[in-house]
Amino acid sequence: MPEVVFSVDQTLSMAAQLVPGHNRWHPDIPAAANVRPGSEFRVECREWTDGQIGDNDSADDVRDVDLSVCHMLSGPIAVEGAEPGDLLVLDILDLGPVPQSTGSSMGAAPGEGWGYTGIFARENGGGFLTDHFPQAYKAVWDFHGQQATSRHIPGVRFTGITHPGLFGTAPSAELLARWNAREQALIDTDPGRVPPLALPPLPQGVLAGTLKGPELDRIGREGARTVPARENGGNHDIKNFTRGARVFYPVHVPGAMLSGGDLHFSQGDGEISFCGAIEMGGFVDFHVDLIKGGMEKYGVTTNPIFMPGNVEPRYTEFLSFIGISVDHGTDTNFYNDATIAYRNACLNAIEYLKKFGYSGEQAYLLISAAPVEGRVSGVVDIPNACCTLYLPTAIFDFDIRPGADGPRRADRGSCAVSG
Amino acid sequence: MPEVVFSVDQTLSMAAQLVPGHNRWHPDIPAAANVRPGSEFRVECREWTDGQIGDNDSADDVRDVDLSVCHMLSGPIAVEGAEPGDLLVLDILDLGPVPQSTGSSMGAAPGEGWGYTGIFARENGGGFLTDHFPQAYKAVWDFHGQQATSRHIPGVRFTGITHPGLFGTAPSAELLARWNAREQALIDTDPGRVPPLALPPLPQGVLAGTLKGPELDRIGREGARTVPARENGGNHDIKNFTRGARVFYPVHVPGAMLSGGDLHFSQGDGEISFCGAIEMGGFVDFHVDLIKGGMEKYGVTTNPIFMPGNVEPRYTEFLSFIGISVDHGTDTNFYNDATIAYRNACLNAIEYLKKFGYSGEQAYLLISAAPVEGRVSGVVDIPNACCTLYLPTAIFDFDIRPGADGPRRADRGSCAVSG
Amino acid sequence: MPEVVFSVDQTLSMAAQLVPGHNRWHPDIPAAANVRPGSEFRVECREWTDGQIGDNDSADDVRDVDLSVCHMLSGPIAVEGAEPGDLLVLDILDLGPVPQSTGSSMGAAPGEGWGYTGIFARENGGGFLTDHFPQAYKAVWDFHGQQATSRHIPGVRFTGITHPGLFGTAPSAELLARWNAREQALIDTDPGRVPPLALPPLPQGVLAGTLKGPELDRIGREGARTVPARENGGNHDIKNFTRGARVFYPVHVPGAMLSGGDLHFSQGDGEISFCGAIEMGGFVDFHVDLIKGGMEKYGVTTNPIFMPGNVEPRYTEFLSFIGISVDHGTDTNFYNDATIAYRNACLNAIEYLKKFGYSGEQAYLLISAAPVEGRVSGVVDIPNACCTLYLPTAIFDFDIRPGADGPRRADRGSCAVSG
Amino acid sequence: MPEVVFSVDQTLSMAAQLVPGHNRWHPDIPAAANVRPGSEFRVECREWTDGQIGDNDSADDVRDVDLSVCHMLSGPIAVEGAEPGDLLVLDILDLGPVPQSTGSSMGAAPGEGWGYTGIFARENGGGFLTDHFPQAYKAVWDFHGQQATSRHIPGVRFTGITHPGLFGTAPSAELLARWNAREQALIDTDPGRVPPLALPPLPQGVLAGTLKGPELDRIGREGARTVPARENGGNHDIKNFTRGARVFYPVHVPGAMLSGGDLHFSQGDGEISFCGAIEMGGFVDFHVDLIKGGMEKYGVTTNPIFMPGNVEPRYTEFLSFIGISVDHGTDTNFYNDATIAYRNACLNAIEYLKKFGYSGEQAYLLISAAPVEGRVSGVVDIPNACCTLYLPTAIFDFDIRPGADGPRRADRGSCAVSG
Repeated sequence: MPEVVFSVDQTLSMAAQLVPGHNRWHPDIPAAANVRPGSEFRVECREWTDGQIGDNDSADDVRDVDLSVCHMLSGPIAVEGAEPGDLLVLDILDLGPVPQSTGSSMGAAPGEGWGYTGIFARENGGGFLTDHFPQAYKAVWDFHGQQATSRHIPGVRFTGITHPGLFGTAPSAELLARWNAREQALIDTDPGRVPPLALPPLPQGVLAGTLKGPELDRIGREGARTVPARENGGNHDIKNFTRGARVFYPVHVPGAMLSGGDLHFSQGDGEISFCGAIEMGGFVDFHVDLIKGGMEKYGVTTNPIFMPGNVEPRYTEFLSFIGISVDHGTDTNFYNDATIAYRNACLNAIEYLKKFGYSGEQAYLLISAAPVEGRVSGVVDIPNACCTLYLPTAIFDFDIRPGADGPRRADRGSCAVSG
Repeated sequence: MPEVVFSVDQTLSMAAQLVPGHNRWHPDIPAAANVRPGSEFRVECREWTDGQIGDNDSADDVRDVDLSVCHMLSGPIAVEGAEPGDLLVLDILDLGPVPQSTGSSMGAAPGEGWGYTGIFARENGGGFLTDHFPQAYKAVWDFHGQQATSRHIPGVRFTGITHPGLFGTAPSAELLARWNAREQALIDTDPGRVPPLALPPLPQGVLAGTLKGPELDRIGREGARTVPARENGGNHDIKNFTRGARVFYPVHVPGAMLSGGDLHFSQGDGEISFCGAIEMGGFVDFHVDLIKGGMEKYGVTTNPIFMPGNVEPRYTEFLSFIGISVDHGTDTNFYNDATIAYRNACLNAIEYLKKFGYSGEQAYLLISAAPVEGRVSGVVDIPNACCTLYLPTAIFDFDIRPGADGPRRADRGSCAVSG
Repeated sequence: MPEVVFSVDQTLSMAAQLVPGHNRWHPDIPAAANVRPGSEFRVECREWTDGQIGDNDSADDVRDVDLSVCHMLSGPIAVEGAEPGDLLVLDILDLGPVPQSTGSSMGAAPGEGWGYTGIFARENGGGFLTDHFPQAYKAVWDFHGQQATSRHIPGVRFTGITHPGLFGTAPSAELLARWNAREQALIDTDPGRVPPLALPPLPQGVLAGTLKGPELDRIGREGARTVPARENGGNHDIKNFTRGARVFYPVHVPGAMLSGGDLHFSQGDGEISFCGAIEMGGFVDFHVDLIKGGMEKYGVTTNPIFMPGNVEPRYTEFLSFIGISVDHGTDTNFYNDATIAYRNACLNAIEYLKKFGYSGEQAYLLISAAPVEGRVSGVVDIPNACCTLYLPTAIFDFDIRPGADGPRRADRGSCAVSG
Repeated sequence: MPEVVFSVDQTLSMAAQLVPGHNRWHPDIPAAANVRPGSEFRVECREWTDGQIGDNDSADDVRDVDLSVCHMLSGPIAVEGAEPGDLLVLDILDLGPVPQSTGSSMGAAPGEGWGYTGIFARENGGGFLTDHFPQAYKAVWDFHGQQATSRHIPGVRFTGITHPGLFGTAPSAELLARWNAREQALIDTDPGRVPPLALPPLPQGVLAGTLKGPELDRIGREGARTVPARENGGNHDIKNFTRGARVFYPVHVPGAMLSGGDLHFSQGDGEISFCGAIEMGGFVDFHVDLIKGGMEKYGVTTNPIFMPGNVEPRYTEFLSFIGISVDHGTDTNFYNDATIAYRNACLNAIEYLKKFGYSGEQAYLLISAAPVEGRVSGVVDIPNACCTLYLPTAIFDFDIRPGADGPRRADRGSCAVSG
């Protein structure tokens, strides 16, 4: 096992760890560890809400989650010799839920043998289909090696494409200022919107390693929230950052200052219910290297590039749903809007699954968490963008394909709901 | 070989065929053929522009293309017993370019041993990156079995995921009226835009099988243009409608009235340069069946669903490019916009390829036509949607992956340009 | 379409073609065509028995087949500049059954929309399980694009891995002499065996292009039979020589003198019933090149090497059967014998399939012709070699996997039998 | 993590464990643990030689290994309710090397961050190519997540298909007697052979759980050696018994009495150098169930059947080597012998790799341990069986494919040799 350069005690909150992590992006958060190019190392991670969600049958914890502390990240890890303009080459050697000691029973923290998928309430972040599902819901998943099942979504078993939702390098002060400016400008176009258009810096709940007092306050005032992906990588939620993947991150500050977490046991493309992966704590084993001056050499200036892993589960038969950029309820046409097209593909999948006895909420949670693929199929055939959602048929223990006899409807239980 | 129910002489225009096809969607275009559920049949197709583009080294033909006659479709084919509310089950048994007789040389029509990819001029339709590439360009591809190469994009050879860009059922009169209404409403928001937001019915260039005179004029005034995908299927440009795929089309009129064409030797997800596939004429062999009342049984009301084929080329190593919904030039943030995110992923891929010596136009044509995958990776991490473009590394005859030594730059020629 | 350098009229026997092919390996058979390195060309092929088997429900034709004329090969094709010691680089660009003209009905020759799989009688060649199935049987398969079904084996539909069973270069006179010597030595160990241990040269039925009289007689006396694979390539029956594959053949004579045929619509590893593929006539499109001195450069002296294609059907779920080198009937142990181990794996698969209602003969024909994989799993764990047969589960229209309820037995008809 | 029902302290020999395992097959070895159908549990395993081989640069330990104690198995585990005639359904949920505690350095036992591949000396077991490589050799591999590299075989890095080489149920007394009889009969045909044809019961080195004195002596006299696969499963060395696989074992005694071990980080088909996998200790997580009366229901009487896993590494480009059943050195022809054919395919691969600078021993160790596929390609084309070895090209950090320029020869170091 490679050396653990960032360790976590899963019985304690991130703030209470010996070396705490952080939950904002800022160049002045001090390094928690140092690594050399060419080395292998392990990073341990808390689940992204720092353990607010429990293995139970109520979605009240999802409804009431405090998002000011999210995402709880491990790091920063300084890479010796990294300078702005380099590319940080990160290989994901291994990753998984919290390794458990012999004979331990299922633990209290997500990742200790279980994880969860949540639909956030509209008042608390919402999700991709919040206009259709405004309440809070939850499904708890049990881990069986690389497979997951849920008592809240019976009839389904799948192999997870396990990955970290979020890793990235620290922004420079100049880059951070640009983020804050452009996102505030967006918020200003509709400041009262629920859910909001973007999340500005927030002093409440801020954690920045060992910083305290005025230094911590400054991070709270200036530090970028961790929700979106940006020029440093960040919360990509790209399910194919999995075992065997290699990611090339732009370096914006000396030492690169790598941080991350938000591990997912599984997730579908889009992570559509926002807390849509199977969320968990756990570990990632990395190999790190540098391409000096790589940003300019390869023209990689705005976003990382990556090579996906080669041990993803092999699903090869899919039932695929199409969506176009039309609001079918009001017969309103949008111009080439892939977001609306993918939303319709999701809604079409949910309608289909309801015919087999799932509730809409169950279906929504399922296509959030299962290894579905989301494709941008057509973006030029004006005015209708066309997106597709590929649902693997093998994850169901009944035949999900259309046939002359019609769908096999059954009582398929219920997900966890809020009170 | 199954019976040919719609045949095409590739030396003649569609209007000059014994049984002509059509280029608008309308319920009153008469059936060109009849088939029974359970039967297999072949449909022959003209290339979508009806042969306006040549195998040469100038993009003038692309610049000057007459889009009023596009897409030239084969059909309609009436399916016995099909009624509104049914699902039409269509298996793609085989498909390919124009089968050539023994000893024939390369033919004049696209599909006769060759095809092309075009970038349309901004004044004539444009494409996904028209703000960056406003002129007309072209690449001609030679077919070698299932593989393609281009003298205009050297260093590349790939196996095509051959598919029809466009098949669909006829709309009912009521559905057609809704299309025309909602698309006109969109156009009305910015009627002078270049390129336009949508394309209204257009009498010029209309073809509707054997209809003539006032009946043809009415089709021209009312018939929907074939560019976008809609509730009848239509121009999906989904590259995975390939050999072995099964599509379930909603039926809106008696007989279903299946039509299509726009065959592609290969295409990347998004078909980003608009005429972005390798365009060709050719044939499709179908098996057809019905699920009576299937729309209601399975909740398939707005779009077809489908199962992709199992003989697609197996590319497994990819270099992947990420885009987020930010205009990096102006540092403007958009809200969760997957279209902008995918556009940025495309632009990032092009910048990367330019470092190896390709021109931007060559790179744009390449990622339009090659079997790249486009993924909706994250659509909930406000404000930044995140899309990814997966470029298979094996299609290049040099190493395209990033390394310490930097990119292998070379003279890589030029695509066809307009005068 | 590439130029046809060897053409076949499927209504005529090979001997009656304008330029006939041959059915023995011999360096003195004159070239039927010439090609240049770097060129693409088409070769048309007769089915391997030259059309002795019909699309009917009796196996009498299989029982009575005349093997003296087999395999009927197309060629030889001389490659300009090829010299002994080179490697001939052959790309399979495309291949398939007999292309049919528009509107034609199913033809009389195998490959014209149909093919067959045969079990030979013990007295006439036998097969891998001839001790268990000594009579003649047959299954006729209908082609549906790349898929096949059989009225003789209902409940099954699969995508073929289409390939030529046999291509090779001509042996030198010296190499031919060695073949004849070593095979005669083997025959001499048990000259009366039925079926024989090997097949010596046979003047009866010989065809050698345009040769006649004493020259033809000499080919008949000296020419090696085409049944086994040898140092020139030959009858490999490797199912993965399919579209996109590249084969490197040793060159033993000036011009290389490439010949082949024995096209298979589909075949399982081992081609276990001898005539165990779906046999057909058809075409292959090749690209050819040379590696000068490649045999020595790469140490390729005894057999070709190859790279398999990338468009094989993607079956990923398999039910796998194990066999070890024990005769379970007599409880006799053999030493590390992979042939016996694979035979037992085949017999175990057949026993399993019988529980679902197939006859043993149907099951034997099925695992001969379907895309099953045969693996050498262990060859060192003395005394028991261990081989495995991978049967794709998706080819059945019922659930073939073991479950608590037991197998779903049904009446599954019958294959064609001999009178 | 599932409950550990058989635990191992990797610093102690198997005999010194709190609950020891065993190294012979016998029905009277008492159960070490009990599990219920439907449960999940973990089994920890010692490396097969019980730790005789070290992480060093000499093959003396391989040369001098004591095989009388091999394989060291964990178990037996009694399954409640299992009766003769049932099928034991075993799912491999997860497996891997020895989980290491935080901050531990590489351990002394194979599996603690490393493993090894050995070529045994002809006098001590030999291997598949012992006539060509009669001495002892070794390669040590370092683990990097699911990937392995070796200082003894530079230029190679691959993802392991991790699997247990050996699991099985206990034989009945009657079945055990048949094994002993048939294997002794084989030995008697050539009793002095080196290496021997089979291994008879051996009192020396026997371990049978807690049994001692006369009871242990009896196990030593009667118990079957663990080297071959037999009717109980056993040492299959099937590399595809990996994560996600399901195996159906015949049950021969009450409780089934499941035992196993011999974990492999990676292995090629055939495990050709005998100790040819990357050998290690570690753990397996199982789910267990029963199909009552399943042996008769499904006709599974001689060997287990199985379904391979779905998270194997995806290698899709291969360079493939062919072998036929001819001794090319003496020009001797064998009849349809797949063992000789596969041996020739292996030798052809080794000759090829030597042209790139590897020694024969390095190449032999490499194709033993890397994820190569071994296929029974043709077994009916008398007299020559045809087998193929598929070598994935992506495991090399240089281009291994044939080209016009010839192989890229380099100094590639040396494997560990014996003094």
